[in-house]
Amino acid sequence: MNIKVTVVGATGVVGSKMLSVLEERNFPASEVKALASIKSVGKKILFKGKEIVVELARPEAFDGVNIALFSAGGDLSRELAPEAAKRGCVVIDNSSAWRMDPDVPLVVPEVNEDDIFKNNGIIANPNCSTAQLVLVLWPLHKEYGLKRVVVSTYQAVSGAGKKGIDDLNNQVNAIVNGKHIICEKFPYQIAFNCIPHIDVFKENGYTKEEIKVVEESRKIMHIDDLAITCTAVRVPVLNSHSESVNIEFEKDFDIKEVKELLSKSPGVLLYDDPEKNIYPMPILTANKNETFVGRIRRDFSVKFGLNLWVVSDNLRKGAALNAVQIAESLINKQ
Amino acid sequence: MNIKVTVVGATGVVGSKMLSVLEERNFPASEVKALASIKSVGKKILFKGKEIVVELARPEAFDGVNIALFSAGGDLSRELAPEAAKRGCVVIDNSSAWRMDPDVPLVVPEVNEDDIFKNNGIIANPNCSTAQLVLVLWPLHKEYGLKRVVVSTYQAVSGAGKKGIDDLNNQVNAIVNGKHIICEKFPYQIAFNCIPHIDVFKENGYTKEEIKVVEESRKIMHIDDLAITCTAVRVPVLNSHSESVNIEFEKDFDIKEVKELLSKSPGVLLYDDPEKNIYPMPILTANKNETFVGRIRRDFSVKFGLNLWVVSDNLRKGAALNAVQIAESLINKQ
Repeated sequence: MNIKVTVVGATGVVGSKMLSVLEERNFPASEVKALASIKSVGKKILFKGKEIVVELARPEAFDGVNIALFSAGGDLSRELAPEAAKRGCVVIDNSSAWRMDPDVPLVVPEVNEDDIFKNNGIIANPNCSTAQLVLVLWPLHKEYGLKRVVVSTYQAVSGAGKKGIDDLNNQVNAIVNGKHIICEKFPYQIAFNCIPHIDVFKENGYTKEEIKVVEESRKIMHIDDLAITCTAVRVPVLNSHSESVNIEFEKDFDIKEVKELLSKSPGVLLYDDPEKNIYPMPILTANKNETFVGRIRRDFSVKFGLNLWVVSDNLRKGAALNAVQIAESLINKQ
Repeated sequence: MNIKVTVVGATGVVGSKMLSVLEERNFPASEVKALASIKSVGKKILFKGKEIVVELARPEAFDGVNIALFSAGGDLSRELAPEAAKRGCVVIDNSSAWRMDPDVPLVVPEVNEDDIFKNNGIIANPNCSTAQLVLVLWPLHKEYGLKRVVVSTYQAVSGAGKKGIDDLNNQVNAIVNGKHIICEKFPYQIAFNCIPHIDVFKENGYTKEEIKVVEESRKIMHIDDLAITCTAVRVPVLNSHSESVNIEFEKDFDIKEVKELLSKSPGVLLYDDPEKNIYPMPILTANKNETFVGRIRRDFSVKFGLNLWVVSDNLRKGAALNAVQIAESLINKQ
């Protein structure tokens, strides 16, 4: 095999995680390039013990490249992804730019791997909160039928990139040392706070983050009319998103069967033994590939209701890992 | 008036807040005593510029006392509240010991003030997460009828008392200074984490905290069969609980009317203008008497659905303020 891969936005939080994931999974690339915007050009990145020099992300940089993993923001994706595709490169894009485009598959491989092969040169990686959610919803849907889903998120600052991580670290340091707090990324102090505002507000009162969870879940699972609502909240956690998920099913279920089903679902780790204080938490899931699910219990407020708690490393399944999995499918199943 | 008041557990986080609230609201007491367990006896507390010496909480300490505000844990309440009541004192108890006792009214004055006067010497103060929730649910229920409620909480460490506050502060300090983390109160590190475990687990997979929200909401609002479910989560916030609340109504509603209704509801502060980044957050509500509500928007996943976000100082409306409000009703309306 002679597969040339490039990572666009290679110096960002997700971009560098993409490189680590490619390395640790021993992705069969004959060459790995790192691209970024002008301000990072010339930086050196260590990959498999060798230095890669960051080059400028521009159309010609995709000549001869087979797969490009993009994580450089929506604007650059809108501009460069079509240029890369035109040159025969398959783009796997982590921004929100292409996700809802009807010509672009939006993929979580454990859910809709087949969609990968319907691509026209661009494949979209879902929003971080959506990826971990559908991973758990999909096996349950196939068995019991989703009737309605209510999600409340507890999202880590790493979802907002390096500046998000810096804000929390700097603010906590400032508070501990009695200094003045500065907010660079978030609209308010995130240290010791919860901010119910991720991405921009739309006219209907929802944030774009909340709308992404709704629309992307429908698209990935191919349930166009899925009844689902979301409240997305930023919490003072460095990494890993948590979700409180309430599900109403079409059919009745047995709690033991639900647990068994999830324990066998790809990408999911059943982590559920309250008696032993075993339940998913952000401090457990950081740098793990699995999406942890626990606190599984019947919701007695509705006919076939279930509550559960899902935690996953948002930089991995929510971003870099999922993108690399798509690339692996492309290679292995084409 | 010649009203003698005593605070039991006066040196605790809630007990000392009870004293502050009595003082700032200029509660018409002719005498205020402070009681506590043996280890705090002799400590001095400043109240209205005068020193009160903490005395031992024992049956005889309630002789001649008219109103006792208890916040000293369930065991002491179970033991001493009946002794106080026997002596003609009305107990307002903040523990969970008496809340679900059919002979004990459980009261949030804005919701069920009349129940106060059905007491047999003991009145229960609700769980912190419940108080702020019913304050918002009640006016909506009267207008549109609650059909089903799904709550996910984001609870501050102050709800676990001084040791909870210490855990978060000590852990954050340890992390900033590169030292080893110690967990004294919580089962795991709470700094930079979310723990979906508050109070003990019951056989059905719910925590007692979650069951309290369900049962106490029903009792306070007198809706015995209210369909309500809860996931309770501890977050690294020092003070003020947040709640993501999803409501299904019996009747249709207009969003503008909902906001108007809540803006006029006692104890509630409508804080909802997403365009201007105005929404409730813990850093805003600490030491405020009002329960803040915002992020009010239609939930399109169900016929008459609504999402909202409620934040309140759990030591005030969730504990000390509500108890003092009950005492004020006792005096003013008897």
